[in-house]
Amino acid sequence: VKALVLDSGRLALRDQPTPVPGPGEALIRVAMAGVCNTDLEIARGYMNFSGVLGHELCGVIEACPDPRFAGRRVAGEINLSCGRCEQCARGLARHCPQRTVMGIAGKDGCFAEYVTPPMTNLHTLPEELSDERACFVEPAAAAFEVLEQVMVLSRDRVAVLGDGKLGLLIAQVLESTGCALTLVGNHARKLELARQAGITTAEIGSLARKSFDVVVEATGSPTGLHAAVELVRPRGTVVLKSTYHGKLELDAAPLVIDEITVVGSRCGPFERAIPALASGLVRPDALIDAIVPLVRAESAFERAAQPGALKVLLDMRAESVG
Amino acid sequence: VKALVLDSGRLALRDQPTPVPGPGEALIRVAMAGVCNTDLEIARGYMNFSGVLGHELCGVIEACPDPRFAGRRVAGEINLSCGRCEQCARGLARHCPQRTVMGIAGKDGCFAEYVTPPMTNLHTLPEELSDERACFVEPAAAAFEVLEQVMVLSRDRVAVLGDGKLGLLIAQVLESTGCALTLVGNHARKLELARQAGITTAEIGSLARKSFDVVVEATGSPTGLHAAVELVRPRGTVVLKSTYHGKLELDAAPLVIDEITVVGSRCGPFERAIPALASGLVRPDALIDAIVPLVRAESAFERAAQPGALKVLLDMRAESVG
Repeated sequence: VKALVLDSGRLALRDQPTPVPGPGEALIRVAMAGVCNTDLEIARGYMNFSGVLGHELCGVIEACPDPRFAGRRVAGEINLSCGRCEQCARGLARHCPQRTVMGIAGKDGCFAEYVTPPMTNLHTLPEELSDERACFVEPAAAAFEVLEQVMVLSRDRVAVLGDGKLGLLIAQVLESTGCALTLVGNHARKLELARQAGITTAEIGSLARKSFDVVVEATGSPTGLHAAVELVRPRGTVVLKSTYHGKLELDAAPLVIDEITVVGSRCGPFERAIPALASGLVRPDALIDAIVPLVRAESAFERAAQPGALKVLLDMRAESVG
Repeated sequence: VKALVLDSGRLALRDQPTPVPGPGEALIRVAMAGVCNTDLEIARGYMNFSGVLGHELCGVIEACPDPRFAGRRVAGEINLSCGRCEQCARGLARHCPQRTVMGIAGKDGCFAEYVTPPMTNLHTLPEELSDERACFVEPAAAAFEVLEQVMVLSRDRVAVLGDGKLGLLIAQVLESTGCALTLVGNHARKLELARQAGITTAEIGSLARKSFDVVVEATGSPTGLHAAVELVRPRGTVVLKSTYHGKLELDAAPLVIDEITVVGSRCGPFERAIPALASGLVRPDALIDAIVPLVRAESAFERAAQPGALKVLLDMRAESVG
């Protein structure tokens, strides 16, 4: 079966044997999968990963330990935890130190016709949630993670920095709290998409320093944290969403003087993302840039890496037309 | 009257006119004052300050708008706020954007025979709190600020990085919560002082990564934050207490992946520090390195800047013996 494999830093579509589920795992026939900026970073060497890429998954259970679940359409969480350590016992399985991560660390991902996540990672999808939208469950969950870590009140002034895929999703999620939200970016087309969704937008130069209660940094750039610290009020909170390869330079004095809180934020609750996407509270359709057959995965990656690109979805069932 | 003045980067003891209190201010005859690492940083150019240094104050009200308070022995908060802005209205007067800061920014400090803080900044000292110990009210309040920002539970594993004056005070304050505390440093003499106060100590190399719920960074060094992030568990909290001049380099990925919270922390509640020092819950005596007359203030600064130095107090009433 076909799979997009990263091997010694090179990406290539390969024919491989159908993967065999381990104990507790399901065999999933992948329907569609989304390309994330983290995939692009991993292809550039972040995480030193080798194997099948891909972690934004929508598919159907083809075989699994409990036959009642066969045929179900599912999304899959990405962290595979041990279930026995201190973090797992605290309910923080996503932070299990023994974890592998689908398509990111030690576990093959879903840019393939088949993938084998553990049953405990799977969430049944409601019928009204299309395959295309279901590919956004994982990134929308990451967006909701902000609300699992920071109490955002309806009177709060909140800025999201970054008008990329994740920034646009986070903006939709935060807009749903009724807070006074501003999405900050510099891509006219993407800011227009946000405005069409009813979100206030701004360019960073137009904003007053220290004027936001909460600033979410989703620029994907090492300079974003500095910009976020400039915008947040004393005793305010910066949520750091960007992952990138490399170090940042920071003047720590404003953090101390203004007693700012910086919260790192990663994966989030599928339980919260699925109903939000199914109900239309979060609407990702306008974020889809292209749907590309798996056999053209390499060109899909090139497209996703273009400046200004939005979400590229891989369709595992479509034949190539090109 | 005598005052230690920083002028164009040079420190000098000068004879100046007695300062005249402004509206709402008191004339304080300074008894003693403590030299803080921030003073050393300011003397090196941090904050671009010019004027009388000093912000750890114990003195007696000599004149003030309300005669009932004349003769009272007091400690003085360092931030002078406007009382009318959004931050002041939130109860965050210490973050007033119009503030001046005694001996740090725009307001003469207390390394002088007289100083003129606003009445609203003064806290009456109980008799049982000696002048020497009262000089620790300001830094002990900064130590208690950790508990105003982070909920430290008695079952939490907490590390304090840095065995300097502030680190040792923070360790005493945190020890009082009953948490499982470790003070991490590399000065044998200072770690011995902490052990004499019943505090567990360690060298950093002996500690397991990701093993503390809360890590307080009080090393005063730009490399301290990196060390703190290494020690804290996933979803744990790092409190950043160090202020220094310059930038730090940071790999932000662990913050995001482990969803760590970093909280900047500065000045704290005098209301909490005074009873803790008066009762002996916090005992600063062993932290006093030397008591030096004001007329020898320049040599007191040299002493305070020695590696391994602890708290140097300036005594404004003592004659020089040297």
